[in-house]
Amino acid sequence: MRKILIIGFGKSASYLLKYLLDKSDSENLFITVGDLNVQYTQSMINNHKNAKVLKLDVFDELATTEAINNADIVVSMLPARLHIGVAKICVSLKKHMVTASYISKEMQDLNEEAKANGLILMNEIGVDPGIDHMSAMKVLNSIRAQGGKIILFESFTGGLVAPESDNNLWNYKFTWNPRNVVTAGQGGTAKFLQEGTYKYIPYHRLFRRTEFLEIDAYGRFEVYANRDSLKYQNIYGLDDVKTLYRGTIRRVGFSRAWNIFVMLGMTDDSYTIDDSENMSYRDFVNAFLPYSHSDSVELKLRHQLKIDQDDIVWSKLIELDLFNANKRVELKKATPAQILQKILMDSWTLSEKDKDMIVMYHKIGYELGGKKHQIDANMVVIGEDQTYTAMAKTVGLPVAIATLAILNKKITTPGVQIPITSEIYNPILKELQNHGIIFHEKKTPYLGYNPLNN
Amino acid sequence: MRKILIIGFGKSASYLLKYLLDKSDSENLFITVGDLNVQYTQSMINNHKNAKVLKLDVFDELATTEAINNADIVVSMLPARLHIGVAKICVSLKKHMVTASYISKEMQDLNEEAKANGLILMNEIGVDPGIDHMSAMKVLNSIRAQGGKIILFESFTGGLVAPESDNNLWNYKFTWNPRNVVTAGQGGTAKFLQEGTYKYIPYHRLFRRTEFLEIDAYGRFEVYANRDSLKYQNIYGLDDVKTLYRGTIRRVGFSRAWNIFVMLGMTDDSYTIDDSENMSYRDFVNAFLPYSHSDSVELKLRHQLKIDQDDIVWSKLIELDLFNANKRVELKKATPAQILQKILMDSWTLSEKDKDMIVMYHKIGYELGGKKHQIDANMVVIGEDQTYTAMAKTVGLPVAIATLAILNKKITTPGVQIPITSEIYNPILKELQNHGIIFHEKKTPYLGYNPLNN
Repeated sequence: MRKILIIGFGKSASYLLKYLLDKSDSENLFITVGDLNVQYTQSMINNHKNAKVLKLDVFDELATTEAINNADIVVSMLPARLHIGVAKICVSLKKHMVTASYISKEMQDLNEEAKANGLILMNEIGVDPGIDHMSAMKVLNSIRAQGGKIILFESFTGGLVAPESDNNLWNYKFTWNPRNVVTAGQGGTAKFLQEGTYKYIPYHRLFRRTEFLEIDAYGRFEVYANRDSLKYQNIYGLDDVKTLYRGTIRRVGFSRAWNIFVMLGMTDDSYTIDDSENMSYRDFVNAFLPYSHSDSVELKLRHQLKIDQDDIVWSKLIELDLFNANKRVELKKATPAQILQKILMDSWTLSEKDKDMIVMYHKIGYELGGKKHQIDANMVVIGEDQTYTAMAKTVGLPVAIATLAILNKKITTPGVQIPITSEIYNPILKELQNHGIIFHEKKTPYLGYNPLNN
Repeated sequence: MRKILIIGFGKSASYLLKYLLDKSDSENLFITVGDLNVQYTQSMINNHKNAKVLKLDVFDELATTEAINNADIVVSMLPARLHIGVAKICVSLKKHMVTASYISKEMQDLNEEAKANGLILMNEIGVDPGIDHMSAMKVLNSIRAQGGKIILFESFTGGLVAPESDNNLWNYKFTWNPRNVVTAGQGGTAKFLQEGTYKYIPYHRLFRRTEFLEIDAYGRFEVYANRDSLKYQNIYGLDDVKTLYRGTIRRVGFSRAWNIFVMLGMTDDSYTIDDSENMSYRDFVNAFLPYSHSDSVELKLRHQLKIDQDDIVWSKLIELDLFNANKRVELKKATPAQILQKILMDSWTLSEKDKDMIVMYHKIGYELGGKKHQIDANMVVIGEDQTYTAMAKTVGLPVAIATLAILNKKITTPGVQIPITSEIYNPILKELQNHGIIFHEKKTPYLGYNPLNN
């Protein structure tokens, strides 16, 4: 039997394990799952004959080395910063490895050694990064194969709540790390390319510079810019593109309301509030408003941010119970972002039956035969439940499929990889389709941002 | 003769030198000015018999040591980061030293050694810091001497253009380092204390949270919060104060217009723009606005920031020639802040005859005899010309007076000092009065922020 070691069994590993177990007889696989939390992992394996759990502490290098030595290929589902330790052992023991995380500098530094040993260190093969790379490169390369020249590339992804579970005014619940949602967009000005000119959006304007997207049967979404729109410009071969824009998808109206938190300063994660523990939610809001001995927190906020009395954003704040004087923050020396996260988790935590949704959308504009064309490609994946989420599916399945493809020598190019070549994306996208992860492509009139070509 | 060495002869040293030269016969002083720029210094000394210029490179430690060794006291007017090198030599050679800059950690570390050797290292004895410490402590201590309890302390300073030279819509010109004006307020959330609760203002709201001040004969000003309102809470003995607020003074309307730059992202100093050299001023503005093939930069800006067509802030932008498509930025790989500074310097540079103005305002609230009282103290100093500026006067005179007072053993407490004790502030404030630097104190009804005491 071919031996697969999965290190780290978190929320996104459910489909990964299921896929491999389902293939384990036909593909002759034995899966070992190494994790500190043996009980949860055991329950997921559910006595399957082709799998076992191994109590493994990745900080125990000897035990980790032994586990890796017993495997033919290693999948790391650990937190991103821990991949490198596993990768170094894999290289020294000549084992292939797969992760869904961004390539770190240290990981990239293993490229030459991996190549020299014929090893594949596959990264960024989850959903974002992962499915975004593969689906985009498939369209881009097919346009290029016809002789087309890419002039516009826009790509958007969002982790949202599924329509059937969407029952709050924000049309949003936390389906992934809440902290990343609260601090999204911070750390620098968003930079992107529109019709040949660089555009810059400071953080405090990010959520007021949204654009709309429409997806058949799902309606309208909005996007705000990522900080790093230009990150893959060179890797995707888009050095001559006129428009390059990447962003995050939300339901329409989320960003305008979120901007209230940004403007007040509630998303700041750079300092702590001394007496946060004893603050009420109302005190927290009031800390960002001028003192008044008579005016209410509500009116001060409305006035500061010029919110009309009948504006829907106000109902969104009320829904979060933001002005409650009796609910305590209860976090010691917390940053504003940590406090806001806690307040939001009261309202935005998924309930047992809630389903999540992953939405991805690419717009690709190109010139061919003297004319401008555009292809839009989008994907919507809905989760099944709180274990088999859309997030787990879109992260875990590409990882699983890639792992098997490497074992079966369908993917053979050695080195530190990301899935941008047809050798990788063709078989994986095809298999993802069999599991309901399907891109809908359609030609649309080219709009770009300069339809009259002035 | 007593020998004074002034190291570094910049814009703020004119009055410092003049004061000491005027006293040189009666006080038996000889002043050596060490600077690399011999010509300018020579012209300022103007063949005075009690002074000479010394060509001095402070990075030449041997030459600097020799110069200091020949002096009885050293005044460093160097850029703040260079004081510490001078201070270390002063301590080793047992010389007193005076600077107008904030005490650095390294400077504070010299305290024990200075004390042990009976040396005075006097710092923060310019205008802000300097005159603010002295004038505030004088009022605070006189209230305490009567048995009063301080409940409110607010202190504001601004470097502005004098009314007679105030001829632009912003009521502002650069009278000091323009870079500090462009990046003012950045680097963290402003924190202050109002009626016993901490208040926080993020940078992008700072210029919309102003308050008004009135000064007889000078009219109305506005203030925005400093980042560090709580910095001197303990040093001033204000641990139990209910309101503690420090800020920067501008003419009314400046901040509302400045906020446009903040919101667009033009004050950002954290990244560079690749092709800034070839950008026009108009291109620069457009980089912060969405692309449009038809809408003007002007209308896009009005729309983004919701500026009405008849709003005075618009005239302020026009006055700066911000939308000029022919003026080039000409700076290579500049940050937005650097580009904005250049645009502003076109309009805000003082002309030959322009005069500057320093404004300072303290509000001090206290309880005495079961009642609440308030004392307001303010100072306005107008410059004479571009050499004898109000800034040079308010920075240089306290330095000069302190230097002489140390020589004359009127200030004797050794160690690393700032001017917060009556030994220091009484004689200096008195002498400043003789030179027109006068605080007007008046009792006003206590207002605070909670007049009904709810």
